[in-house]
Amino acid sequence: MLSWVDGRPAAELPLSDRGLAYGDGLFETLAVRHGQPCLLAAHLQRLRLGCERLGIPFDEALVTDELLAFCAAVGDGVAKLIVTRGDGLRGYAPPTPVQPRRLLLASPLPAYPVGHAEQGVELFPCALRLAEQPRLAGLKHLNRLEQVLARAEWQDSCYAEGLLRDQAGRPIEGVFSNLFLVSDGRLLTPSLERCGVAGVMRGALLEQAHALGIACEVRDLAFDELLAAQEIFLCNSVYGVWPVRRLETRVWLPGPLTRKLQGVARTLLDC
Amino acid sequence: MLSWVDGRPAAELPLSDRGLAYGDGLFETLAVRHGQPCLLAAHLQRLRLGCERLGIPFDEALVTDELLAFCAAVGDGVAKLIVTRGDGLRGYAPPTPVQPRRLLLASPLPAYPVGHAEQGVELFPCALRLAEQPRLAGLKHLNRLEQVLARAEWQDSCYAEGLLRDQAGRPIEGVFSNLFLVSDGRLLTPSLERCGVAGVMRGALLEQAHALGIACEVRDLAFDELLAAQEIFLCNSVYGVWPVRRLETRVWLPGPLTRKLQGVARTLLDC
Repeated sequence: MLSWVDGRPAAELPLSDRGLAYGDGLFETLAVRHGQPCLLAAHLQRLRLGCERLGIPFDEALVTDELLAFCAAVGDGVAKLIVTRGDGLRGYAPPTPVQPRRLLLASPLPAYPVGHAEQGVELFPCALRLAEQPRLAGLKHLNRLEQVLARAEWQDSCYAEGLLRDQAGRPIEGVFSNLFLVSDGRLLTPSLERCGVAGVMRGALLEQAHALGIACEVRDLAFDELLAAQEIFLCNSVYGVWPVRRLETRVWLPGPLTRKLQGVARTLLDC
Repeated sequence: MLSWVDGRPAAELPLSDRGLAYGDGLFETLAVRHGQPCLLAAHLQRLRLGCERLGIPFDEALVTDELLAFCAAVGDGVAKLIVTRGDGLRGYAPPTPVQPRRLLLASPLPAYPVGHAEQGVELFPCALRLAEQPRLAGLKHLNRLEQVLARAEWQDSCYAEGLLRDQAGRPIEGVFSNLFLVSDGRLLTPSLERCGVAGVMRGALLEQAHALGIACEVRDLAFDELLAAQEIFLCNSVYGVWPVRRLETRVWLPGPLTRKLQGVARTLLDC
């Protein structure tokens, strides 16, 4: 597995890194095609925003240069970029000056069954309810124990993803995906002001849908609205769009707006 | 800095460790005196419980043997023990079988001002409100971004600790300490069912207070109860007990029950 630390090939990082000690950092997972990262600008924008909110210095030119060089070496696959706050011996206050650490890890494109994109996926109804922390909501940070616990709720491979809801029971996202509904011709996706990860593909699809003249709403959604929706789909920046074909006893067929945005996602991931 | 990985001296760990990727692990911070870990049984018990709740296999005999050997090498200082779920290439589902990784890091005993224990400390009123996640509450897991953000709220060294409250404003704990109140001769400490870390020193003091015939209550506390308390103190398993002498405009003098339990903590940390 190809991996770099601070721009140089390396397979390990110091035990003193705060990414390990506290999950004090952020990550991006990028599809790589023909040596190029897909949706690069959007990934960098989210990372920049995350670093601002966590107070981690962000050298965008350096990160971009390293990422482009790494993706050129990867060719086709997935690149995971992690930025941590760097070393710290003990205590939550970071040393000054902070020297962030940049990690890059390559992996093959996941071999998802073709049916996920074609016929759609079945959603597992996770019992875990996401905690509400506005200071961290939207960020793709390294504190991901909720996702680990939620993913451990099912082993049956008939479920490709799990549905995560907030403390009030509102649908928020999948374990590694964002969630969209189609209701009366409008595209709806949950607000991520209190919990959830603001996915890069989610942002790109909202932008493209707007450009296509599709009415979009980002707001709190009730669980009943999910069940009543005409179409449901999931997205992320590696697999694109998966229709949802089943949640508990409710069954859907992939709908026209899902198919349209699936095509948009394919174009976006064709780099 | 002395450090071991899986029982052998090492300063680095693989980039593929899930402790880094997701904060998928737990830690214990132990005072070490004369080559012995203090409060060993309580630390191991909490770690065992945490591993059970996260579904991480826990080889207690192995962890204990390594920890004892490590502390003998440390002499006097602080030993941090981290247990992660081990390697994982991509995705929240762990590989099977899970092979947890054991990390040990030594550091010197922190040089806190003597006044912290003698005259007491001033508490910074953190604006961050802890998220409520019953599945993780009480555990000393590696998802500690809330503590990082809270600690970043103050730089003035007149504040030795910060007060963390939950979403409803109830006092829960310090950033790296637990919180006790004395009210009408009773010892009170917040319930940690929804958020917070169940500290080893907190547990030991509750046990010892009970043995001394002091009435103890573990329950939700209102912020007003904190302000109305006759005594307030903080504790952890490295520094023992610090009286709180100020929070915003409220001022306290170290009280008799605080002093009594401070003595108990000193005995517990004398290994």
